[in-house]
Amino acid sequence: MTAIDLNADLGEGFGRWRLTEDEQLLSVVTSANVACGFHAGDAATMRRVCELAVARGVTIGAQVSYRDLAGFGRRAMEVPPAELTAEVAYQIGALEVFARAAGARVAYVKPHGALYNRVVHDEEQAGAVIDGVLLADPALPVLGLPGSRLLALAEKAGLPAVPEAFADRAYTDEGTLLPRGRGGAVVSDPEAVVRRSVGLVCSGTVTAHSGARVRVHARSLCLHGDTPGAVDLARQVRARLVATGVRVEAFA
Amino acid sequence: MTAIDLNADLGEGFGRWRLTEDEQLLSVVTSANVACGFHAGDAATMRRVCELAVARGVTIGAQVSYRDLAGFGRRAMEVPPAELTAEVAYQIGALEVFARAAGARVAYVKPHGALYNRVVHDEEQAGAVIDGVLLADPALPVLGLPGSRLLALAEKAGLPAVPEAFADRAYTDEGTLLPRGRGGAVVSDPEAVVRRSVGLVCSGTVTAHSGARVRVHARSLCLHGDTPGAVDLARQVRARLVATGVRVEAFA
Amino acid sequence: MTAIDLNADLGEGFGRWRLTEDEQLLSVVTSANVACGFHAGDAATMRRVCELAVARGVTIGAQVSYRDLAGFGRRAMEVPPAELTAEVAYQIGALEVFARAAGARVAYVKPHGALYNRVVHDEEQAGAVIDGVLLADPALPVLGLPGSRLLALAEKAGLPAVPEAFADRAYTDEGTLLPRGRGGAVVSDPEAVVRRSVGLVCSGTVTAHSGARVRVHARSLCLHGDTPGAVDLARQVRARLVATGVRVEAFA
Amino acid sequence: MTAIDLNADLGEGFGRWRLTEDEQLLSVVTSANVACGFHAGDAATMRRVCELAVARGVTIGAQVSYRDLAGFGRRAMEVPPAELTAEVAYQIGALEVFARAAGARVAYVKPHGALYNRVVHDEEQAGAVIDGVLLADPALPVLGLPGSRLLALAEKAGLPAVPEAFADRAYTDEGTLLPRGRGGAVVSDPEAVVRRSVGLVCSGTVTAHSGARVRVHARSLCLHGDTPGAVDLARQVRARLVATGVRVEAFA
Repeated sequence: MTAIDLNADLGEGFGRWRLTEDEQLLSVVTSANVACGFHAGDAATMRRVCELAVARGVTIGAQVSYRDLAGFGRRAMEVPPAELTAEVAYQIGALEVFARAAGARVAYVKPHGALYNRVVHDEEQAGAVIDGVLLADPALPVLGLPGSRLLALAEKAGLPAVPEAFADRAYTDEGTLLPRGRGGAVVSDPEAVVRRSVGLVCSGTVTAHSGARVRVHARSLCLHGDTPGAVDLARQVRARLVATGVRVEAFA
Repeated sequence: MTAIDLNADLGEGFGRWRLTEDEQLLSVVTSANVACGFHAGDAATMRRVCELAVARGVTIGAQVSYRDLAGFGRRAMEVPPAELTAEVAYQIGALEVFARAAGARVAYVKPHGALYNRVVHDEEQAGAVIDGVLLADPALPVLGLPGSRLLALAEKAGLPAVPEAFADRAYTDEGTLLPRGRGGAVVSDPEAVVRRSVGLVCSGTVTAHSGARVRVHARSLCLHGDTPGAVDLARQVRARLVATGVRVEAFA
Repeated sequence: MTAIDLNADLGEGFGRWRLTEDEQLLSVVTSANVACGFHAGDAATMRRVCELAVARGVTIGAQVSYRDLAGFGRRAMEVPPAELTAEVAYQIGALEVFARAAGARVAYVKPHGALYNRVVHDEEQAGAVIDGVLLADPALPVLGLPGSRLLALAEKAGLPAVPEAFADRAYTDEGTLLPRGRGGAVVSDPEAVVRRSVGLVCSGTVTAHSGARVRVHARSLCLHGDTPGAVDLARQVRARLVATGVRVEAFA
Repeated sequence: MTAIDLNADLGEGFGRWRLTEDEQLLSVVTSANVACGFHAGDAATMRRVCELAVARGVTIGAQVSYRDLAGFGRRAMEVPPAELTAEVAYQIGALEVFARAAGARVAYVKPHGALYNRVVHDEEQAGAVIDGVLLADPALPVLGLPGSRLLALAEKAGLPAVPEAFADRAYTDEGTLLPRGRGGAVVSDPEAVVRRSVGLVCSGTVTAHSGARVRVHARSLCLHGDTPGAVDLARQVRARLVATGVRVEAFA
């Protein structure tokens, strides 16, 4: 029986502002990428999300980011490696307090936004992120793109490297993501997203932008929760996977 | 043989800016109140200070503050208790990562600036700080002013409450600090500061602003490191205490 | 024929986050209190709101705040007067660029949130705000609560002082606002809000919380746009005022 | 008689932190690049520097930066052009308030740190900066590196483009700056800096890193004020220029 983890970004508000439907998403996903204050996520929200996650049996992960509230962590930054390492560790530690207080632990780390994209190819920044994870906990799994420098360096450092897939993103023939700027980069038809999810999980393949069938190895599927209808779609994906006989469970 | 701890604020720079003479202070004090990013203290500085502290056998404490970089945490803020609790825990957790990575632990918590002053009398905010400490670690000592609400609530919650004294501040007849705005609130003569330090430690008394002799119970002496000559003065205080036969050692 | 201004807070998002229905509100109000970056309002949003406001003939005002993104400017802060003065002027100047570029000018200043409440009674902070307005422009109208220290000091300084009323807030017998924490402080029945608006504008009176009829002198009515149904309610208020024969127009 | 402007970065503290010797530098330079709050420069400091500058007849310029207090504006950021444009205008407007209140105007714009380096080659970001300047004032001079995209686009937009030179930096044979990371990139010998200053101003040439003599056209010389001895060196440069018969005066 195939198993898959469903992860989503949570707690991405800040102070008065809200973005993600945290309560509803926590009834769908098995892993919560909790914002740690650098791109979103005030301390009170982090605490609340951790408590809700534990109450629902959802695994807690640290969604680490560049320090950039104004840009929501979506603007690449030339952060010197030593600073980036310390900032990654800082965020993990801050979240760990709330995870422990709720009776759990930070169980994995996933970079956010521009940092996520950067560490696909950037050896230096990927290494800095891994060093930050190691500072915090030398056995913490790292969630990221298959084939990324991040996962390669995680493995090299002895950290579990967990590859994820995106059911609502178009893939190239090489199995990488079509950049967001490109036409057709995002799959918006709900039924297509559901179908692609099942394909990714059950056969380990997806129809690329070109029409070709490509292999995508993933232990987790990333769902989105910040657009209208996103939670409904996430529910459908989960329901269809379960109906297909897939075991939906956290990887960590 | 009498024992006293010497504590000072450290790592109070931010990015390009420096304030405290961290390396030199660490050769004098036994406890380092490390800034955790809310009034000062970027992640890389926190890491460096923790490594230096451990290398010199100095105990690490979390110097928690209102979120106020622009005001250096010196402006009182009406932070709702639940937010303050979460922010205190957040700061402790962030520092804990660097303390652990350096081979130590966060061994105590001390509020900074306006928050320090506020929790002397403010029941609600003092309670919020204690709740934040409890979230992080239900056995963490709290360093503060003798007679403060903070220390009273710490004791009530089962946390070790550690009172501190200030050799360079004038005291009222009630044993509280003369407010900074008042004339003579700060003792600037180095020899007087040294003499008062010895008196505070050895006899548990100090000459108040009025000339009366008042009792001040303290297990730690707070030294300052952000003014010219401060480190030299701190060295003199320590040397005189040692010469007087006092054991200078961390309380935690 | 009676005239009234309708004002509302606009541009209260930050980066990725949105709060106010800016476009819709701009079709209802005559004065836009534009957030200037200290409690909300990134630069790009400020520019966009100014352009939209000018396109719709809506007057632009600077909604100045304590520097507190995490608390949305709702936490009172003990900011030293000289700092507060400079921060108020800074915000007005930043908005002025976008108002001018759109073909208008900053036409008034209104404090936000905790600062708004503080300057009702706090002489020192009210004076600091007025000094900030004077630094920016010695003829700029100030919008605030009737009877507040802010408006008194504005008049004393030769600045036009513009009193405003709230149709959705309960009043005391003295004509001041019932604090938000108290039961019944906010009027939630839409029809009641509409009726109170007409009463406030046409007779200069409102039914207080006690049932008594009290006088409230106002040249502007503050509408809210950050809750579901708020824009609809604002539209109804405006429509009823117009139907009653009131001239809805900016005060500045 | 040859004329040269001397410019330096000022007001680069933030809250409690200080960096630049503002008062002393203002007795040497003719143009002050005032930090506007994005990499440094709180509002009260901006006000004070503007008052001091006007008192000493020094011209005020807006030193605009990426929004990055933690990195002092030294980390390149992928800011979308529309955001960068708005942020540049915001900073100019904020400074303009204090310049006007002191009896002057913002007389030019100079990008800071990573933004300064970026707009040497990056067409898009250089264009975004120019658009920001145009929003604020369509006749504002722009100070930057000769040959940079920034100055080229400034000229194209009808803004006065003012080239500057660095007496303490090594030049390539092409007349560009040797990157800071390279050996010998910074000239530290004071006498060499003074001599190079005179050469740059009087003959429009400088000895490149290779030993070749290269032409560098500059209307302003950038002096530094954030290192020990920097103010003394700046004084010597000015004295030697005056002794050589050069007219030291602002370009704007």
